[in-house]
Amino acid sequence: MAGTEAPTIYVGKKPIVRYLMAAISILLNEKPEKLRISARGRMISKAVDVAEMLKTRYLPGIVDIDAIKTGTEELQDPNQPGRVNRVSTIEITLRRTGEIGISRR
Amino acid sequence: MAGTEAPTIYVGKKPIVRYLMAAISILLNEKPEKLRISARGRMISKAVDVAEMLKTRYLPGIVDIDAIKTGTEELQDPNQPGRVNRVSTIEITLRRTGEIGISRR
Repeated sequence: MAGTEAPTIYVGKKPIVRYLMAAISILLNEKPEKLRISARGRMISKAVDVAEMLKTRYLPGIVDIDAIKTGTEELQDPNQPGRVNRVSTIEITLRRTGEIGISRR
Repeated sequence: MAGTEAPTIYVGKKPIVRYLMAAISILLNEKPEKLRISARGRMISKAVDVAEMLKTRYLPGIVDIDAIKTGTEELQDPNQPGRVNRVSTIEITLRRTGEIGISRR
């Protein structure tokens, strides 16, 4: 249950760079130990891209992937009462493994 | 390193039901302890769907998700020598948690 209050970025239809910037900004300013990247349905691929790009390209040595959990959400179909739609979800937890900061001079 | 030889299903552009049937068929016939679902790029969302549908809808109590790993593959761009394209990957390992079989009478 530790780290339940980790900040979470919900990945949706915006360009991927927005989520990268949001993640970098939170890591720089709030310096949390963990950061979650969350998505549903087709956005799951994009959430994996965000996590992998942070880990390998933009913040190597500073964040690593701590845990990945998938799930299924059941939603009432608004147009067909009684019908349940299912959608897959992912939650990727990043862990800070190095210092990140802006040095002023 | 245990289970490195687990059978692997590569999720691509075919309809999702094909991957579900492939997984069920392998689990019924080969009865492996573990089964891998693997995908790249946009097919990652579909791989999560396959794993979640097997776990929650088609084989509940029979398979569970054992581990999820993401990665980044670097490929030479065939049209631009020297340029590297990166693509995210996922590998979902399912573990058999119950008996599965066909009883004849």
